[in-house]
Amino acid sequence: MPKFKLTIAYDGTDFVGWQRQASGVSIQGLLEHALEELDGAPVSVTGAGRTDAGVHALGQTASCVVRRIIAPDVLTRAINARLPPEVRVMDAAEADPAFHARFDAQAKTYRYRIWNGDVISPFERRYAWHVADRLDLAAMCTAARSLEGRHDFASFQSAGSTVRSSERTLMRSRFLTGCTVTEHTDANGGSESRLLCYEVIGDGFLRHMVRAIVGTLVEIGRGRWPADRIVQLVASRDRAEAGPTAPAAGLFLVDVRYGAL
Amino acid sequence: MPKFKLTIAYDGTDFVGWQRQASGVSIQGLLEHALEELDGAPVSVTGAGRTDAGVHALGQTASCVVRRIIAPDVLTRAINARLPPEVRVMDAAEADPAFHARFDAQAKTYRYRIWNGDVISPFERRYAWHVADRLDLAAMCTAARSLEGRHDFASFQSAGSTVRSSERTLMRSRFLTGCTVTEHTDANGGSESRLLCYEVIGDGFLRHMVRAIVGTLVEIGRGRWPADRIVQLVASRDRAEAGPTAPAAGLFLVDVRYGAL
Repeated sequence: MPKFKLTIAYDGTDFVGWQRQASGVSIQGLLEHALEELDGAPVSVTGAGRTDAGVHALGQTASCVVRRIIAPDVLTRAINARLPPEVRVMDAAEADPAFHARFDAQAKTYRYRIWNGDVISPFERRYAWHVADRLDLAAMCTAARSLEGRHDFASFQSAGSTVRSSERTLMRSRFLTGCTVTEHTDANGGSESRLLCYEVIGDGFLRHMVRAIVGTLVEIGRGRWPADRIVQLVASRDRAEAGPTAPAAGLFLVDVRYGAL
Repeated sequence: MPKFKLTIAYDGTDFVGWQRQASGVSIQGLLEHALEELDGAPVSVTGAGRTDAGVHALGQTASCVVRRIIAPDVLTRAINARLPPEVRVMDAAEADPAFHARFDAQAKTYRYRIWNGDVISPFERRYAWHVADRLDLAAMCTAARSLEGRHDFASFQSAGSTVRSSERTLMRSRFLTGCTVTEHTDANGGSESRLLCYEVIGDGFLRHMVRAIVGTLVEIGRGRWPADRIVQLVASRDRAEAGPTAPAAGLFLVDVRYGAL
């Protein structure tokens, strides 16, 4: 039976997250429902990352086994015809029978978008965190980069997690200057709005880890802590020491990287 | 009584357009309602351009007179507090008492976004026209540029219009190469998706003119007509000769330019 690797994009605003829940509509549930209709039998879909309610994806990756022999582009069209427009299979490819979307993932890229200005654009309301306070971007950039490398990220892990180790490696933790655009300057040259985009690439992420990092970076941007305080927050291994969890709406799972599969 | 110039952004998806209608929610209606609540008396709001149902704005401009003496940033916050998040006053500035948002507009910039690929991203479904056919972008660029200058655009004007002259000057009519990004290439290197962005700046626009131009450019992209056919379509001054009207969702009123006001 052929195994497929699916690349999926979704606007997570109106869903309970990737994973099936007791109630509410999940991305996994929508995909499994569409595939069951197509394949005439239950199909299990495994995602690379379990995005939370309200979190978006540009390149979530999933694996599934179907009984029917079907060409990847036909499968893409057939699934998409059974999904709401907020969820799209962007690509399907036949995969090695041993491929597992979660266990084989070597790195994931997330981006977090912050709208920094008095008034948030109507086009960003579902896709960015609106922070009206003046932010010290230089301090945020310095703090972000000091997280690169292998660390114990227990300070940035939400309660209720059952992972054995909270050590993770971040290959990249930066603000993308390309995203720092001035969208609008008012007539008096006074306030201006900018879109900040934080990008993080890691070999794995703890529960709410990216949002806790961003919440902490924003506290640094607001001047509550100096940039180098983040190293001590990591060392403390205490969630209560770090900043709040940033809202889900700004977070995007951008890409999942696999080896030579 | 102070006159204000408002810069307004809106996601037009769920509205009947800028102008008040017998039924349905209009942007003008929302603003006038918010201002009446604030000012304690009916306030008339004049927009630079009457965008149609489903058309978006990044920088619609409007003028209004209020009775209360109020600082522009206080006015911005007060109006926004009375608007749905799909509509935002991005800026307010005090204007010359003679300022008229429509009559004083010297140029308007529109952009039209086309998603060209098999599967449209969930983030573009409200903001772009999905054209799955392969498009000859070089031909579309040539045709677009040949519309620059002063022409009679009767071929691109919808019925029901009552303007005296259909002559308009386009200062710019181009595809922005910066918007032509490859969003996704599939595993087989086969199909790829790209976002095309057409930008047009003119001293005025006829009813549905931008969307009729884009509908025609896409017909050229599909190979129905050669690029130089667009010059003949203009010369014919016959709406039936040109291509169909492109959907509203892809169109954005980006900017309205005024003189030394």
